Amino acid sequence: MTAEKIVWQDSFASRASRMNASEIRELLKLLDQPGIISFAGGIPDPALFPTQVIGDAYASILADPARAAQALQYSVSEGYLPLRRWIVEHMASLGVPCDEHNIMITAGSQQGLDFIGKLFLSPHDTALVAAPTYLGALQAFNAYEPRYDTLMLEGGNRTPQSYAELAKVRGGRVGLAYLVADFANPSGETVSLEAREALLDLAEALNIVVVEDAAYQALRYDGENVPPVLALDIARSGGIEHSRTLYCGTFSKTLAPALRVGWICGASEVIAKLVLAKQAADLHCATINQAVMHQVAEASYDAQVTRNRGAYKERRDAMLGALARHMPEGVTWTKPEGGMFVWVTLPEAIDGAKLLARSIEECQVAFVPGGAFYGEGRRDNKLRLSYSLSTPEQIDTGIGRLGGLVGDMVAGR
Amino acid sequence: MTAEKIVWQDSFASRASRMNASEIRELLKLLDQPGIISFAGGIPDPALFPTQVIGDAYASILADPARAAQALQYSVSEGYLPLRRWIVEHMASLGVPCDEHNIMITAGSQQGLDFIGKLFLSPHDTALVAAPTYLGALQAFNAYEPRYDTLMLEGGNRTPQSYAELAKVRGGRVGLAYLVADFANPSGETVSLEAREALLDLAEALNIVVVEDAAYQALRYDGENVPPVLALDIARSGGIEHSRTLYCGTFSKTLAPALRVGWICGASEVIAKLVLAKQAADLHCATINQAVMHQVAEASYDAQVTRNRGAYKERRDAMLGALARHMPEGVTWTKPEGGMFVWVTLPEAIDGAKLLARSIEECQVAFVPGGAFYGEGRRDNKLRLSYSLSTPEQIDTGIGRLGGLVGDMVAGR
Repeated sequence: MTAEKIVWQDSFASRASRMNASEIRELLKLLDQPGIISFAGGIPDPALFPTQVIGDAYASILADPARAAQALQYSVSEGYLPLRRWIVEHMASLGVPCDEHNIMITAGSQQGLDFIGKLFLSPHDTALVAAPTYLGALQAFNAYEPRYDTLMLEGGNRTPQSYAELAKVRGGRVGLAYLVADFANPSGETVSLEAREALLDLAEALNIVVVEDAAYQALRYDGENVPPVLALDIARSGGIEHSRTLYCGTFSKTLAPALRVGWICGASEVIAKLVLAKQAADLHCATINQAVMHQVAEASYDAQVTRNRGAYKERRDAMLGALARHMPEGVTWTKPEGGMFVWVTLPEAIDGAKLLARSIEECQVAFVPGGAFYGEGRRDNKLRLSYSLSTPEQIDTGIGRLGGLVGDMVAGR
Repeated sequence: MTAEKIVWQDSFASRASRMNASEIRELLKLLDQPGIISFAGGIPDPALFPTQVIGDAYASILADPARAAQALQYSVSEGYLPLRRWIVEHMASLGVPCDEHNIMITAGSQQGLDFIGKLFLSPHDTALVAAPTYLGALQAFNAYEPRYDTLMLEGGNRTPQSYAELAKVRGGRVGLAYLVADFANPSGETVSLEAREALLDLAEALNIVVVEDAAYQALRYDGENVPPVLALDIARSGGIEHSRTLYCGTFSKTLAPALRVGWICGASEVIAKLVLAKQAADLHCATINQAVMHQVAEASYDAQVTRNRGAYKERRDAMLGALARHMPEGVTWTKPEGGMFVWVTLPEAIDGAKLLARSIEECQVAFVPGGAFYGEGRRDNKLRLSYSLSTPEQIDTGIGRLGGLVGDMVAGR
């Protein structure tokens, strides 16, 4: 038999590749090329990781025979109890009263999206997502073969009936609504209080769950906090056990991504089902990493968040300043109050992917073209710029070059 | 809204619970109860973990700024290259020539089963599994809503046509064949060379993949090594790129489970699709744990395997000796050449679950009743006994009590 003859289900992989996953991965490799100024990766700056505190935590846990035996052994699927209790306190500080039965540990918030898709989406069901939205959410949901319909969070959504009817025509029902409520990837925008309440109205009318991806929530640089969708849901429903929102949190953007520790917070009855999904998928998250994350969060979560906010704010300011200085007329962009991304809209005629090809060739500047971030209604004159890994000087140089190239393309050069 | 009104898909969770997952989890909690002699958990003895070597690896990686920055950062979905290269050498030592494009790192072998189910099983497809088989494989596959048909590995399988026809009647096709080839969980038995070749014949006739779960393969205490199914497949097909077998390996039973590091080895074209599944599910395994596992495997894989074999062999011998001394006539059991389990068959009239209830109450001895390990054709007069966590003295005491109780039940007391 040749490899070509192996019978597999192409559909999953081809749907994933439709989202340009491999294109994105190729782009990210550019980060390693000397001379390239990259605004492509949406990843934290390793210079900000609390490496010493993490190292001390591994060392102290492994130096204690009883703790080491526990930290290296199989453990429960819902996660390490002291860490879940720390997260309970953390959620309370965000306006979400809950207890440890409302928390399950996941391998980053990404795994939460996968399990929620597994539980709430069947083939032909419809997922409501913003356009653009986080590529990885679409990839996670795609495995369960949904269709997508577009949430218009700020613009005023369509009627519940119109969402339900289109889902029915497509052979399923609306399964969930997904949003990155704060400093979204890729747009950098934050969903207003009014739009959050309207989304909860819509979800109530459709009787669906709301998936709140809180990956960037802690990274606010200015402006007013907006309560998590889950907090608003609890305020109206009377308690987390009556809520329909599943909050996906992570330590990836505050402490470090590579321990792969995140969480889902929601009604305990749903969490119990997600725990069964976790058990079936990979048994549990690395026990030792959960114990380390607990110790690191206890010791330095607040200090670390303060430090990250300071560093990234400076870079965001540099990016917004450079865009204002260097971009030609007809180019617009978002003004994020936090997170890692600015979303740029080019004149209609300019294609982000074509700009990228020329930008790498002529300017040694990388970014992610916007087309990849759409479940439906793809627009090609968009760019995602990340400022998280660059110095203010690199940002000014890179945006200067990019602005010059856009000016050339606008002028037909 | 009440929690009861939340719309979720019950089917996945209820199918999982049909497998008695929560029953099993409750049982495992007994491990922590003082006074209970537990043969329930199939988990390694933490006293055998290479804790010092693991601690040294974390410390040395985190003490080097460049390595620390890499180890704490996002990384590629296919896994840490030096670890994949170590696994390439390891697979070669098992008779499987391959390169790093044939290896993807997974969160234990469990996650390999989940991704393979995701790729090769659609609702109504049929998975071929032995009866009994590993509970966790059934849980992983259940999320993709397959039916099961029974592999009779040693007894001579049915014709390919009969498997294909039943699968068609059920509304799908045969998606895969799954086996634990060596020292299976729960039976302790090893599939013979002849049965492995016959399975490959069957898989070739059905044009399906074979999933070889190698969780216990390194833990052989006596008898002759049998080549991995993947090695036999390569020998007949001419190379790994022409093979249909996906080998799921793990460090959980040789080094330590809680770092959650395992791998899939197979044709690179299939691995590339599994990498997309990994990216969508949780991006990648904990970078630091992969780097640590590489360092630990380099330093002490062989020594660790030798140490584990010695310790577990003594316990297996104690278990087989105690069963021979204490079990009444009419009780039979397997004679494993490795692994962690002995599979006991009681007289037909005795129900393993009822025996467990009395055993805990009257003897303070725990085990897993066999009914949970069947995809089809459930048998209730079976027990799974694990000797991995008990001393020879505990084994003799526990089996002595259990044998006395079985004798009572046989005698109608």
